[in-house]
Amino acid sequence: MTLFTDLEDSPRGTRVALDELLDALPYNEQGLIAAVAQDAGSREVLMLAWMNRTAIETTLREGVACYYSRSRQTLWRKGESSGHVQKVLDLRFDCDGDAILLTVEQTGPACHTNRPACFYLQVQDQEVVVVTAPESG
Amino acid sequence: MTLFTDLEDSPRGTRVALDELLDALPYNEQGLIAAVAQDAGSREVLMLAWMNRTAIETTLREGVACYYSRSRQTLWRKGESSGHVQKVLDLRFDCDGDAILLTVEQTGPACHTNRPACFYLQVQDQEVVVVTAPESG
Repeated sequence: MTLFTDLEDSPRGTRVALDELLDALPYNEQGLIAAVAQDAGSREVLMLAWMNRTAIETTLREGVACYYSRSRQTLWRKGESSGHVQKVLDLRFDCDGDAILLTVEQTGPACHTNRPACFYLQVQDQEVVVVTAPESG
Repeated sequence: MTLFTDLEDSPRGTRVALDELLDALPYNEQGLIAAVAQDAGSREVLMLAWMNRTAIETTLREGVACYYSRSRQTLWRKGESSGHVQKVLDLRFDCDGDAILLTVEQTGPACHTNRPACFYLQVQDQEVVVVTAPESG
């Protein structure tokens, strides 16, 4: 039994120490967990990125989303250069701990392309279509 | 330039062949892409799972979500045993192709614990709390 299988059968209101849960997360071979950011207002799914343990702890401590950049191999405080920060209202783990859901207030566009969200490539029959444009200014 | 960096600067309405995009996806070392399922009605983020190319093609062909089970190392037609299928209304890729967003009509609970969604472990200060109960029946 892992912590997560224990919690599956636990009633609502069951509590576990954050540190204990962070110890038990099934980090991948790069030490990362997938993290999904959802806009608190529009409920749009904005992006998927990655967090290591330090990024999770930093996000919780600072109240704004901090991811781990796989390309730059460093902590990535989202918006540190663009100003497009994500204020984190809620952070949850899923049933087996391999995903995180952030509920956020997004400042500016979430996507590095200046689109409101990253999921702009929509399948239509046998094609994929760019369905949103970058925001101007 | 990859296909995805090309598409970043492309205007709304730009089209690319689905096969070409599937060829260009940055599958991880297990051949997988992260896939997020969101409920079309409630807009709740239901779960995160994984898809290989065959799972993506099967999902698009059959119109119901088919993932790849990492534990069983096989295609996993969600709901094939439980009946808790996900009718897929929309499938999108993100800016760099390393995530998929499915908009679904969920039959029954999405989570294998019989909870409506998988993200039921909420951080509250220095603890994590089980915030939903399994559905009965």
